[in-house]
Parts: sequence; structure tokens; C-alpha cells
Amino acid sequence: MAELTDLRSAAALLSWDERVGMPSGAASTHGEMLATIKRVEHEKFTSSDTGTLIEQAETEVSTLDADAPARRKVAVTARDFDKATRVPSRFVVTHTNAVSAAHQAWREARERSDFSRFEPHLKRVLELKQEYVSFFAPADHPYDVLLDDFEPGARTAEIQRMFDALRPRQVALAKAVQERPAVDDAFLHVPYAKNDLLEFAIDVISRFGFDWTRGRQDMSAHPFAAAISSNDVRITTRFVDRNPFELLFGMLHEAGHALYEQGVSQEWNRTSLIGGASLGVHESQSRLWENIVGRSMPFWMHFYPGLQKRFPSQLANVTLDQFCGAISRVKPSLIRVEADEVTYNLHVMLRVEMEIALLTGGLDTKDAEECWNSKMADYLGVTPGNSADGVLQDMHWSVGLFGYFPTYVIGNVVSAQLWSAFQDAEPAWEGQIQAGDFAPLRTWLQREIHQHGRRYQPRELVRRVTGNDIDAVRYLTYLETKYS
Amino acid sequence: MAELTDLRSAAALLSWDERVGMPSGAASTHGEMLATIKRVEHEKFTSSDTGTLIEQAETEVSTLDADAPARRKVAVTARDFDKATRVPSRFVVTHTNAVSAAHQAWREARERSDFSRFEPHLKRVLELKQEYVSFFAPADHPYDVLLDDFEPGARTAEIQRMFDALRPRQVALAKAVQERPAVDDAFLHVPYAKNDLLEFAIDVISRFGFDWTRGRQDMSAHPFAAAISSNDVRITTRFVDRNPFELLFGMLHEAGHALYEQGVSQEWNRTSLIGGASLGVHESQSRLWENIVGRSMPFWMHFYPGLQKRFPSQLANVTLDQFCGAISRVKPSLIRVEADEVTYNLHVMLRVEMEIALLTGGLDTKDAEECWNSKMADYLGVTPGNSADGVLQDMHWSVGLFGYFPTYVIGNVVSAQLWSAFQDAEPAWEGQIQAGDFAPLRTWLQREIHQHGRRYQPRELVRRVTGNDIDAVRYLTYLETKYS
Repeated sequence: MAELTDLRSAAALLSWDERVGMPSGAASTHGEMLATIKRVEHEKFTSSDTGTLIEQAETEVSTLDADAPARRKVAVTARDFDKATRVPSRFVVTHTNAVSAAHQAWREARERSDFSRFEPHLKRVLELKQEYVSFFAPADHPYDVLLDDFEPGARTAEIQRMFDALRPRQVALAKAVQERPAVDDAFLHVPYAKNDLLEFAIDVISRFGFDWTRGRQDMSAHPFAAAISSNDVRITTRFVDRNPFELLFGMLHEAGHALYEQGVSQEWNRTSLIGGASLGVHESQSRLWENIVGRSMPFWMHFYPGLQKRFPSQLANVTLDQFCGAISRVKPSLIRVEADEVTYNLHVMLRVEMEIALLTGGLDTKDAEECWNSKMADYLGVTPGNSADGVLQDMHWSVGLFGYFPTYVIGNVVSAQLWSAFQDAEPAWEGQIQAGDFAPLRTWLQREIHQHGRRYQPRELVRRVTGNDIDAVRYLTYLETKYS
Repeated sequence: MAELTDLRSAAALLSWDERVGMPSGAASTHGEMLATIKRVEHEKFTSSDTGTLIEQAETEVSTLDADAPARRKVAVTARDFDKATRVPSRFVVTHTNAVSAAHQAWREARERSDFSRFEPHLKRVLELKQEYVSFFAPADHPYDVLLDDFEPGARTAEIQRMFDALRPRQVALAKAVQERPAVDDAFLHVPYAKNDLLEFAIDVISRFGFDWTRGRQDMSAHPFAAAISSNDVRITTRFVDRNPFELLFGMLHEAGHALYEQGVSQEWNRTSLIGGASLGVHESQSRLWENIVGRSMPFWMHFYPGLQKRFPSQLANVTLDQFCGAISRVKPSLIRVEADEVTYNLHVMLRVEMEIALLTGGLDTKDAEECWNSKMADYLGVTPGNSADGVLQDMHWSVGLFGYFPTYVIGNVVSAQLWSAFQDAEPAWEGQIQAGDFAPLRTWLQREIHQHGRRYQPRELVRRVTGNDIDAVRYLTYLETKYS
């Protein structure tokens, strides 16, 4: 596992480099290099030798306590091995080629805003997803198999229950907020000096506890976080003129992911337990720091005076209340990545509901655009004027990512559950945040979530921390309280 | 070979990252990752499967022309394989541990300026070098074996002949220059704005033809060049207050290495032929661009007005003649890395002569410091006041680099031979450089040297281009003409 995690770390570094440092003309040689590292890792991991070692290890740890680290390591490794070896390599090749063609078709279709150019590829990708599901038969629900790759142990039925709880109340809340007078956020969209904003954001994540001796921050086309190891966690952000504060909130979001990875126990280095429990739990960290903390009044009570001082011409006449109102402005829109807290989940639920219907035959790819537009009208009260801003807006389906979207909703839901548990554990939280002291929150998260890495599956982890299953009620309370 | 070169490329990228991007706390996990990649590459390359494939390939290409690319590829691969498999892996481990201890001891010894703390480690490293030589017996001269790792096909006797030609005339030249009135270079050591100098330097290497779509330039503790592939060549430079122009000349030097790597034929991608013919030939490129071009009058006739405009307070009253005099100022000093063109080879020869004597028993490690100091006095007329500025100044021996130093002299010698051949081929060269047009020089070097990669060994390559063996006479003529 030490050798395999080293190879995975190298692949992570190569991917980071591709997005941050690589000269453009190196794309194809860089791609070959990355493919080779991944293939070598895959061959070594899926070899029969690995299978034998896992079987021996399972016997060795079978008498240990169910929660003993060694037993958890073996269990996680065995699970990864099972998943990696069930999928025949000829399928992997077919899938790689199909999504490569589908992604190309999606780019062209989006450019021309013509869904019909992408539709046959979507159909083909879905057939392959159905074939993929068959390698893991029997499953309670075919979508469970796809979900499990991103959210180990999650079940479609449970996601659907969560959605049924969220949908009506988030639709109602979005509508209610829209009926109030519009919030003025014009002062967020005037020119801000990039370097000053960057300095401010770096100061904030330093206060969060981002460890610069084990991480770095760069600019890239899209913000992302990459964990080479828990001692080398790299985040990025971006600056766009029309929305300067994306630099800040993007960085807070990625810092949330980074604190998770930096907080994983050093004991798990070079084992299967490094990394986060799931994409959903990961997203709970990024959303917690970006939104629950980073768009809250106590947070800005501390930071707003400094921000005003840096940007007097833009903010001298803007009150703290006005500022906080603007950064949490709700406005139903067509585009998921620009959505506010109230409408974000609705964008995601629409996609997940379509994915399930497409996979199980309840929806034909030919009717996908119509379905998209009608759900958009129902949930958000807006209708795309063209396919590029509608069914073609996200790349996920074109690269074969089905089962991935639910993790965004799980992230939001879990973030509120953890926030509530933290408030119970640390009654002085509000004063701490007003004082710019984030150590209690970070320390609590590190102890309750981060340190465990992949030791516990999401459901088990949330139950350990909160005493409850993953459940929408806390998130709804958070939203309804904040936006009422 | 595609897979192996991909792994080597990944290792090169990891090494670059370690020196340019890595957060400090990642050192040990990064080291493990790099060691794993190198071990996987080494295991794959030295496997008996590789040996069998090479034998089959040798048979297949045996009827081809001796210069056919396929035959050259197989020959170079077979040579690499032979070298890699002759050295037992238990020796590699012993050597790694010994130089690790020796390097640590060297750092401590240097800090305390106490050679006696390093001497036993030097002795141990030399024993291991003797053992290494034994794996390649019989050799004409034991030092040939060490030399060959950096300069394929080079012979000790030939190096010694070259040194015998260079030594008396360079010693005499250094003495003659010293007898003239000292050149004033004080204006090079006043404050210069780093970013302005960086912009200027980047402009110069862009004019040289550095391809920014297949390369990048960063800052690091010591300037270096790293070729991930011919499509991804990365250089660095540094800025130190007391010597601002190191930023420029360091960058020109590394750009010389980079132009070589960027110029290697794309046909050799993912084969044994990528990279340079030898460290000496590589150094011929860096020294040519840094010194023969970058410290020449025609070069500065083009660039000096722009430099003056950028730095009026420092250079407005400095004439072109004064500037060119200052950047080529000769001053015998104790430190190799700060040496000028006239004295540089003398520093290197001293070390190589000692290496040969140490390896063959003509010099005992206990007498190494005395030998160093006496040669310093003979060649340069200076004597170190302490060990740190003397026998302990370079890290090379502590990390086991014996046979490496000669490549610096070979680089200088070959740079002048190539320069002379270029002047013959392109009689209009002087006007071109005065006009800032470096395309003819770069194109000529690309055709004559760069494109071939490792296809030809250094001796063969130089003979193809110049009609002569590697020979000191051109370099002596260059030095004596410039400095008379």
C-alpha cells in the first residue's frame, strides 16, 4: 500500500501540475506520463498477488476489534480491491473511448447550443453505465452502484427520502425570498484589485488554520483542491472581473477541503485510509467553511472592518448588514455553479432525478431536454433560453460522471448537521468567530471528522459525531432561519 | 521504453516540484514518492524481460545501416541496460547510505570549516568508487569508468591531454589580465529592481527562441534546468542582492540547456534517444549562450540601450564598453561558482586532478586539503583562509559525484569549437547578433546538435559538426582573443 499510495500521490501531483503549471505544448506528453503512472498503479493493485495479500491480512486481523485500525485498513483495501477487480479491463477501455468521444461531442453541442448533437452520446454513456451496474449485481437499486463510487454505502432510497424532504421547503423558501424587495449587491460587482483581494483571502484561510508548511495556493482556470498527501495539499482559486468575490469564496471553499486533508491522521500515511470518507463528507467541509462560516454575520463582524479599510472606495458607504445581505443574496438562475444557498440543492436534485430516470428507463434521452426545462420551471421558476444554459451546462454526464451529483446535496445536509453538533459542543462559538478565533471549530472538526480519513463510511461517521443518520432537517432549519 | 521514459519524466517533474513548488513539510512524503517512482522504473528497466527484448531487437536491427535511428535506439538502450545491470543492488543501497552520511558530515564540516570531520567519509566514498569501477573491469584507466557515466565514451588520457594544453595558457592569461589596471564593476553591485531585471532577462531568452509553449521559468534557491520531456522544459534563476546580474546570466545559462532539450527531435519522444548527448555537450550549450553570446559586444550592442533605459539611475553614465568590461571582469577568487571565464577551468582542473590522484592512490585523503591549497596557489595565486572556502566548498564529492567535474571543462572547450564552426557556416553572424536576431544560431545548433538527442556520443557528434575531435585550441584562441 505504501508503494501504491506513492504512485497515487505522484498521479495527483501530475494532475495538479497539468492544471496549474504545465506549459500548453506539453499536454500530450503529460497525458501519456499520467496514463502510465495510473496504469502501473492499477496493474500492481489489481494483481493476484494483491488479492492473496489481502486474504492473508483478513485472516490476520479477523480476531481484532472491529474498529481496530489494522482491521479497518484491511477492510477498506479489500473493498477497493473488489471494486477495482470486478470491472473488466476491456470495459475500462471501451468506457474511456466512449466518454472521450462524448466529451468532444458535448463541447461541440454546447458551443452550438444543440442538444441533438450530444443526445446519441448520452445514450451510449448510459448503456455503459447499465453495463457497469451489472458487474456489481445484485443491487437494491441500479443507481446504488453508481452512487457507491462517490459515496460509499449510500443508497438511492435514502437519497430520494432526503430529496423529498428538501424539495418542497426549498422551493417554497426560494419563492418567499423572491417576493421580498431585491437585495442590492451592485457594490460586489465593481472593480476590485485582484492582489488586494488575494491578500485578504489568504489572511482569512491562514486564520482558519490552513497550514502553509503543508500546502500551497495558486491561481487556475477553475478553483480546485488536490491532496498529494496529507502533508502536501494544494488549492487554487480564480479571479474574474465580473465577480471578484469568487476569488474569496472559492478559496474558502477549497480551504475547507484542504483542512480536511491536512487533518487526516499522520498514522494513515501510505495506507488505504488517507483521504476523505466520501465526496459528500468532503463537500460538507468546504460548504461549512465557505457558507455556514464564511457568509455568516459573526464571521464578517470580525473581518468586515479590515475589508472596508482595504477597499474604501468600494465599501466605505456599505454597512455590515448590507454587505452580509449582498453576499447571501438569493436569485433563482439557470446556472448551477452560480447558484446561491437556497437554490443550489434544487439544481442538483433536478439532475439526480433525471439520472435515476435515465438509468432505469423512466426517461428517454430524447426527452431529456424537455424534462430539464420543465423541472427548471417547477423548482426555480426559470426556463433556459437555450440548451447551452440548460441541459448542456455541466460536463459531468459527458465524462461519465453519473452518481456524482448527489454528493453536493449530501455535503450541504451534512454541513448543517456537523455545525449543529459543534454548536452543542462549543456553546461559546459565536464569540469565538466574532473574535476571529477559528481554532475551536477546526480542532473539533479535526477530532471528529478529519483525523479518521477513510476509517469510517459516511453514515457511520455522521452517526458517531451527531448521534443521527444523515438527515435533511438541520439543513432546512439552517436555511429557513438564515433566510427568514 | 515508452513506459520507462514516462516514469523517468514523472521522476523529473517530481524533482522539479521539490525544488520549486513543494511546501516544506512535504519533504519526507515527497521523497518517498520519488524513491518509489525511481524504484519501479529501475525494477522494470533492469528486469530479465528487458534484457530479452533488447537481445531480440539487436538481432532485428543488425542488418540496418549503422546510423539508422532504430539501430541507434537499440544500441543506446543496450548500453544503458548494461550499465544499470552491472551494479548489484546491494551496492546501490550501501552507496546510498554512505553518501547520505557523507553529505551530512560535509554540511557539518563545512559549517565548522573543519576538513577532518569530512575526511573519513571522503575515504569511504572513494573506496566505494573503487568498488564501482571493479564492476566494469577491465578499463584502460579506472577513472574512465566514472567519467563514462557523465560523458559517454570519454577517456581519462584525452582529458589529461586537454588539461595539459589548457593549464599553462590559462594560468598565464589570468596572470597577464591581473597585471592590467582593475576593471570597475561597482555599478553591477548596486540595487536593481528584481522584477525589472526579470522582465529584461525573459525578453532576452524569448529572443533566443525559448519556446514558452513548451517550457517555463521560475525562481529557486539555485538556478537549474529540468527536462520533463522535450515538450516540457523548465528552468529557474535566482535573485541575490549582492549580485543582481546573476539573475540574468543564470537564466541565459539555463536557457542554453533548455534550447538543447526543446530542440531534440520529436521523433525520439518516449525512446532512449531523448535528452542530451552528455553533460559536457549540454554544458557547451549553456556556456555558449551565457558567455560566448551573452557576454559579447555584438549582443550588448543590441540589448544595452534597452537595459540603460530600464535602469537609468544605475547605468545612464556607464558606456557600452564599460558595461561589457565589467560583465567579463577577471578576478582570481577562491570560489568556483563565482569564477570568471579565464579562471573557471582552473578551478575545475584542480578538482579533476585531485579526483584522479585520490582514486588511483596517488593522493591520500589526509593530504587532500594541503593538495587543494597548493594547487590554488599555483593556478590562481590565491589561498583559502579556511576549509569552507577551500576543499569543502563543493558538495559534489559528498554525494558521490566523481567524474562529473570534467564535463564543465569539456563544455567550455566544445562551446568554442561549435562557435567557430557556426561562424564558418554563417559569415553574417555578427550583424545578426547586433540586430538581436538569434534564429540563425539557434537553427544551426538545433540542426547540428540538438535534434540528435542521444543518437551520437559526444566525440562522434563533435567530429560530425566540426570535422575535429574535442580539442582545447579553439577555446584558448577564444579566451586569448577576448581577453587580450
